[in-house]
Amino acid sequence: MRENYNNRLDTLSADLAEICRLAEDAMASATKALLTADLGLAETTISSREQIDALAAQWEQNAFSVLALQSPVALDLRIMVSGIHIVADLQRMGGLAIHIAELVRRRHPAHVLPAEVEGVFADMGRVAVEQADATREVLLTRDADLASELRLKDEAMDELHRSLFTLTAAPDWPHGVPTAVDVTLLGRFYERFSDHTVEVAKRVIFLVTGEFRRDEA
Amino acid sequence: MRENYNNRLDTLSADLAEICRLAEDAMASATKALLTADLGLAETTISSREQIDALAAQWEQNAFSVLALQSPVALDLRIMVSGIHIVADLQRMGGLAIHIAELVRRRHPAHVLPAEVEGVFADMGRVAVEQADATREVLLTRDADLASELRLKDEAMDELHRSLFTLTAAPDWPHGVPTAVDVTLLGRFYERFSDHTVEVAKRVIFLVTGEFRRDEA
Repeated sequence: MRENYNNRLDTLSADLAEICRLAEDAMASATKALLTADLGLAETTISSREQIDALAAQWEQNAFSVLALQSPVALDLRIMVSGIHIVADLQRMGGLAIHIAELVRRRHPAHVLPAEVEGVFADMGRVAVEQADATREVLLTRDADLASELRLKDEAMDELHRSLFTLTAAPDWPHGVPTAVDVTLLGRFYERFSDHTVEVAKRVIFLVTGEFRRDEA
Repeated sequence: MRENYNNRLDTLSADLAEICRLAEDAMASATKALLTADLGLAETTISSREQIDALAAQWEQNAFSVLALQSPVALDLRIMVSGIHIVADLQRMGGLAIHIAELVRRRHPAHVLPAEVEGVFADMGRVAVEQADATREVLLTRDADLASELRLKDEAMDELHRSLFTLTAAPDWPHGVPTAVDVTLLGRFYERFSDHTVEVAKRVIFLVTGEFRRDEA
């Protein structure tokens, strides 16, 4: 019975890492689709929504069973409560990647991005994928130090995000308002993806240390 | 002991409604500050962050105690698990209202909005506050019908949101790119606030019916 219970907890942790991997893959392919105006890749990314949502719903159902049948306490309970938050963050990360792919599909065959912001989005995509990869690692290892580093990486994303405002606000921005609106929304999607990796990191820190976070906005 | 336990569950539900009320107030005052470029009101809205975050953290801590000490099952467990999701949604609603106020402060003494979109934002603010008010009612009554209505109200917000894109994309939009960028971000904040009320409604439906949601993105 006890062994079975520990197996279920291990499976729940591994399943979170798997959902994170799907969100990471979605972000990688959404960014590639964005930079190359690749409709097929955008469609593939969008179709990953079903799998991510199904896994998240399954995770919640499994977690509910464990809570109902095993009444975990102490660290095990923290694992469950943190996981309930984390699965929502991971699902949202997937949703944001899919929003990017949806915009690619809506504008196809046109490119969403003018050439001078492509570099910024390539960097944002790279940072986002790195953050998701580190998040997956944090979920598997529960390494609080790695989780703390993730919180710092967010600053690189914030700086890239700010640079977009500088570009679109320049008096000589030649691409008109609708393109600036697309760039603004896309920038927000990347920034929010990054924020959610930080939320997951905070939850893992809570899980390990038992300290409730104070600074969440 | 049992009475004490029921009291704690009731208090947890009432506390969620209270956090929702704070998010609603923040949205009402943020919208007023936005429409009148009122710096003082923007500052007041921003300062509500501390109270919302503190109440949310306190809620989580109390919920953790109940889970650890009482091992609730069935409906009581659903109340707790739903609540863990809901408190995150409510806190985020407060955060989005505060984002609006922060933009008002950043642009002051200028108005963020040109006159022709003021009406749309007045409507978005009204819908958002109505949704938050209905959400509070749903949290207090656990009325699944009212929760289902809330999911429909989201469509009014989506339509208002779409109308913003039509306005900023018009060839004769005379206010330049930076203003369109502000309008785009603000529109997104209102839309996301509305989305979170729908998430809360879905959670209450789960709470009442025990049916896991399938369509969340």
